[in-house]
Amino acid sequence: MKSKSARSIAFQGERGAFSEVAVRQLVAEDSPVLPCASFEDVFRSLRGGKAVGAVVPIENTLAGSVHENYDHLLSHDLPIVAETGVRIVHNLIAPPKVRFSQIKRVFSHPVALNQCLDFFQKNPRIERIPFYDTAGSVKMVMEEGLSDAAAIASAVASEIYGARILRRSIESDRQNFTRFFLLRTPAYARRHKVPAKPNAPWKTSLVFSTRNQAGALFRALSAFALRDVSLAKIESRPLRGKPWEYLFYVDFLGHVDSPQVRHALGHLRELADFLRVLGCYPIGA
Amino acid sequence: MKSKSARSIAFQGERGAFSEVAVRQLVAEDSPVLPCASFEDVFRSLRGGKAVGAVVPIENTLAGSVHENYDHLLSHDLPIVAETGVRIVHNLIAPPKVRFSQIKRVFSHPVALNQCLDFFQKNPRIERIPFYDTAGSVKMVMEEGLSDAAAIASAVASEIYGARILRRSIESDRQNFTRFFLLRTPAYARRHKVPAKPNAPWKTSLVFSTRNQAGALFRALSAFALRDVSLAKIESRPLRGKPWEYLFYVDFLGHVDSPQVRHALGHLRELADFLRVLGCYPIGA
Repeated sequence: MKSKSARSIAFQGERGAFSEVAVRQLVAEDSPVLPCASFEDVFRSLRGGKAVGAVVPIENTLAGSVHENYDHLLSHDLPIVAETGVRIVHNLIAPPKVRFSQIKRVFSHPVALNQCLDFFQKNPRIERIPFYDTAGSVKMVMEEGLSDAAAIASAVASEIYGARILRRSIESDRQNFTRFFLLRTPAYARRHKVPAKPNAPWKTSLVFSTRNQAGALFRALSAFALRDVSLAKIESRPLRGKPWEYLFYVDFLGHVDSPQVRHALGHLRELADFLRVLGCYPIGA
Repeated sequence: MKSKSARSIAFQGERGAFSEVAVRQLVAEDSPVLPCASFEDVFRSLRGGKAVGAVVPIENTLAGSVHENYDHLLSHDLPIVAETGVRIVHNLIAPPKVRFSQIKRVFSHPVALNQCLDFFQKNPRIERIPFYDTAGSVKMVMEEGLSDAAAIASAVASEIYGARILRRSIESDRQNFTRFFLLRTPAYARRHKVPAKPNAPWKTSLVFSTRNQAGALFRALSAFALRDVSLAKIESRPLRGKPWEYLFYVDFLGHVDSPQVRHALGHLRELADFLRVLGCYPIGA
């Protein structure tokens, strides 16, 4: 029998991080997880067989793309097999029995603290203290048994560390979503390939580079536009060793095996210096 | 007479940061400077009249775009009037009289330490210690008068703090350039407007959003492609309040007053929900 870790889904952060919320949306609720210190470690865990899947954030509606993970998608050959959107709900979390009136300090990641400015304006007596991680701040507040402090993190973090939610959903902007990818090994993705269904909503992600010529990007996008294939996203990243040239990451609607997409990819291959499909997956909720 | 600070060029970082190297390339060598703690402070200093110009990094050939500054360009109306590329040359810098053989520890920003991995592999006896800033690490090593430590930073930092360069150009990858913008106030940019010269190399930067429709980006780019206007760069950023919709930042070759560009902008205005020209400037070295 395989060890628990070899059946795990790897993610970056402490237990209860928003990536773990995404894991629960993407695979079985009770799937074992492997928290990792860095995104690089997440990709390596999956490649090295320490995990059977990896969940990584790729973009946030307020902060934008997680560019580091675009680079890792290129350097590790680990196909995207699913996506999901997680609404970032920040909760004020304290040890059980601690009352809201006792709270003098709140620990969390600086980005999370900044996303709850309305709450801090309404409660000026509460001091903000930056911490390395949202879920990690719940863990610390519980381990230290602090009675005047709370953390800001996900509801899952509160549950995992046996803490209590004092105020739900204290984020200022509710339009705060993070999109996550589920990655598998190439062998796993081949074994579990889901066939295209006509008209079923699929998305495909790819990366390409063009010759550095006038109109090159326009012509590359014509491969999609001329076949009514809709782009969902385009992202550029610098091309290593070629200053001021770029790789383009594109997400579009369609299944790689559909005739339109096959023609579009054939056309794009004519125009591109480099092209790789990163994955084809059902459009996530 | 205006105070020195009111004639200064603002930049982010300590004296001797790579942004100050860019200041020297973009304005007079002896121009007074105003070091700021954050990019937000740099933009505010210029808007608030505490500086007459601001220099900000916009992209690096290894790390990619400085996305925070794209967002600031949109929220502050401060036109780009010049650009320049700085080659990121990392030097090993120590107090005068300290010899290379004495060095046991090297302080610098984690990104700089990571860009000198070949040096550290060749010198395994030297410990790497992350510090908040490249130039700040020179300042600290000098102020503390350390005799077993060095910093990694620009040659300008060594000069400013009266330190000495022990090893020049220890970066692993020489294709490491950062592109900087010089920003002015709208009034200053109007007073100092440089007219278009036929065939002189100019660049224009703008930001736009399109309706979220199939082929919208393709049609937007057709405004340039149909007039043989070459794109130099495209960057996407999330549109606030509209999850999974984007703003596009485009740099293209041409002067805003040239007929082609005027036609292209007119065409793009038809197609875009929102469009703003961020600046028009001579192509930088």
